[in-house]
Amino acid sequence: MPVNLPPPDPASLLPVAGVELGIARAGIRKPGRRDLLVMRIAPDSEVVGVFTQNRFCAAPVTLCRERLHLESGVRALLVNTGNANAGTGADGLRRAARTCAALAGLMGIQPEQVLPFSTGVILEPLPDDRIIDALPNAVADLRPDNWAAAAEAIMTTDIVAKAASRRLTLDGVEFVVTGIAKGSGMIHPNMATMLAFVATDAPVSCEALEAILRHAVNRSFNRVTVDGDTSTNDSCLLIATGATAAPVVMDDDDARFAPLRDAVTDLMVQLAQAIARDGEGATKFIEIAVEGGRDEDEAKRVAYAIARSPLVKTAFFASDPNLGRILAAIGYAGIDDLEVDGVRLWLGDVLVAERGGRAPDYREADGARVMAEADIRVRVDLARGHAATTVWTCDFSYDYVKINAEYRT
Amino acid sequence: MPVNLPPPDPASLLPVAGVELGIARAGIRKPGRRDLLVMRIAPDSEVVGVFTQNRFCAAPVTLCRERLHLESGVRALLVNTGNANAGTGADGLRRAARTCAALAGLMGIQPEQVLPFSTGVILEPLPDDRIIDALPNAVADLRPDNWAAAAEAIMTTDIVAKAASRRLTLDGVEFVVTGIAKGSGMIHPNMATMLAFVATDAPVSCEALEAILRHAVNRSFNRVTVDGDTSTNDSCLLIATGATAAPVVMDDDDARFAPLRDAVTDLMVQLAQAIARDGEGATKFIEIAVEGGRDEDEAKRVAYAIARSPLVKTAFFASDPNLGRILAAIGYAGIDDLEVDGVRLWLGDVLVAERGGRAPDYREADGARVMAEADIRVRVDLARGHAATTVWTCDFSYDYVKINAEYRT
Repeated sequence: MPVNLPPPDPASLLPVAGVELGIARAGIRKPGRRDLLVMRIAPDSEVVGVFTQNRFCAAPVTLCRERLHLESGVRALLVNTGNANAGTGADGLRRAARTCAALAGLMGIQPEQVLPFSTGVILEPLPDDRIIDALPNAVADLRPDNWAAAAEAIMTTDIVAKAASRRLTLDGVEFVVTGIAKGSGMIHPNMATMLAFVATDAPVSCEALEAILRHAVNRSFNRVTVDGDTSTNDSCLLIATGATAAPVVMDDDDARFAPLRDAVTDLMVQLAQAIARDGEGATKFIEIAVEGGRDEDEAKRVAYAIARSPLVKTAFFASDPNLGRILAAIGYAGIDDLEVDGVRLWLGDVLVAERGGRAPDYREADGARVMAEADIRVRVDLARGHAATTVWTCDFSYDYVKINAEYRT
Repeated sequence: MPVNLPPPDPASLLPVAGVELGIARAGIRKPGRRDLLVMRIAPDSEVVGVFTQNRFCAAPVTLCRERLHLESGVRALLVNTGNANAGTGADGLRRAARTCAALAGLMGIQPEQVLPFSTGVILEPLPDDRIIDALPNAVADLRPDNWAAAAEAIMTTDIVAKAASRRLTLDGVEFVVTGIAKGSGMIHPNMATMLAFVATDAPVSCEALEAILRHAVNRSFNRVTVDGDTSTNDSCLLIATGATAAPVVMDDDDARFAPLRDAVTDLMVQLAQAIARDGEGATKFIEIAVEGGRDEDEAKRVAYAIARSPLVKTAFFASDPNLGRILAAIGYAGIDDLEVDGVRLWLGDVLVAERGGRAPDYREADGARVMAEADIRVRVDLARGHAATTVWTCDFSYDYVKINAEYRT
């Protein structure tokens, strides 16, 4: 069950002027499921994205990369769940292009102005005919206040839909940021480890929007892992429609850049944490904060060694303060000259280990008290420098095995 | 349950002249359990070893490294299960040294001639008094034909004891190689991913024995992973007593070097595979053979990406040919310039994927047939060069979670 993750209140999701969303049932994997999402984006919007670094990237990722920076601009997103269109070779590219062309025809735009996104089973042909048949219904459904239904339409093994909004006033003008994301398994950077679509009505230059996306993704979606598997389909898009009249935010010299960047980052952190809270089979949400690294890379390596360890994750599932497993993960994280005598480990506010062994004041009852909570913080000080990082993950339960053993049945 | 892994037949385990083994009950973790092993080694034996690369290595590993190449030589091994004596700092070193000194006193040798080995729970103090109290019984039990009981004494979550022998005749003289190993969870190179003790009565120089050990370990224990967690205690020792009269094997110019090396390697491969077959919760044994790499390192990276993926391992548990997960793992293994169109993937003898997608002749029923077997071979051709490697692992089941969630209860 998702950990401290209530479903989003539809009334809290603010429409973004210049973005309309339409949902339909294409029967891609399950009959009757609302599994198709179309997003219409106003002309002259800026759209930037980051994508998986998996070499077996999906056909839609390849098409997105080709089309994202064409002069014609992006006018629509076409998103399906139930089939990843990955490991499908040249045929997969053809099918993705066919669905985009069909949507372009319905909307009176060019095929290359449509970006496709898919999530679901790998290595199976995309049922493009069924998607094309359902497109007219999705287009007929297009409206600005459809974010909650869109968040549901892109779910796979997610239990809770993931969506959030922010409102901010800059130089007396009110702007909105709203985003949705999906992801529950096959979650590991780089990159964005899921699908996420975030839009604002602020006017932002392409360069400034790229800078905001990079900043936000590195502090959000690139810091979450469920199972250490980097997906073939990860995509995160940031859209600025500029529909709300105001001078364009050109670069970080603009006083509005930082607050806008921080609002986008804050929203993406909420969505990224929601992915870990709704990780497959999750019963615990775990934040792993590593400090005292020589550089951020080694702090990250230690954080991910802990976050990925099946032994650590099953101990969290059991609420068992078997904390030697965390020390072992720190020890094999690949810092060859790590002096373990300097390392300190906290569970919540309890100092567990120092000077290469158990802290003198540590009592198992203190560890057990923290372990019994649903939200748990692990803190590690490497005592080598001043670099730090934080990553989020969940525990490893029977249900993770069940969900993934039965995924296709 | 262990996969195609019958327990060793005690009658098949050949004594090694110059090695005696004694077992006792120390009550380290469970009362009444035979949890303590002493091995007495004849004077002038050559002893070489490889140890974990985990920075949080256990106190006994630190002592072994210090003592292994002292001029006084190694005369005894002291092995306990139930407590890893890892994450125990300076106090752990003192306790390990105390137990060694006590054994040395009983045997009339020097304390630094005793090598300690521990396996079990991390971050808890070694009950050195209980070990010392049990040592006289272990010494009284010393005899050459005790290998089967020794293999049982070092088990932790192992279900089946792991032991094997080889007999070979070189230049008309018959030699014996016998070894035992333990390991079931926290299994991942480098290094040796468990405890293993292998002995031969052949006379071998220290240099030649080191070369044999490196060769054998790189083809055996360094190729097995259960959960990707590199233990704090991994140790593999190779002992040559030289008790059988023959000229010493000085180096690889000796015609007997290669057959002896191959016998040791063959035995260690059997023990390493036994660890994967008896991996925690295992229901499938999986061999992953990667060929066509530019170098062995990239072949290994791909093999381990597949072998470590929880998504791949749960699919094997479910006998579900959800083979896109293997493609995804190949794609994120870290070969940045991998051309996926050239990659081919076989499951058993069935060609599953080529040219970036599903092979035209692949039928799900063929994949399902292979998946239903207990011993499964995955073959990947990267089509980039001529380097190859093979690793062994097991699937990921409910019982893995159960065993590791309840490990300390």
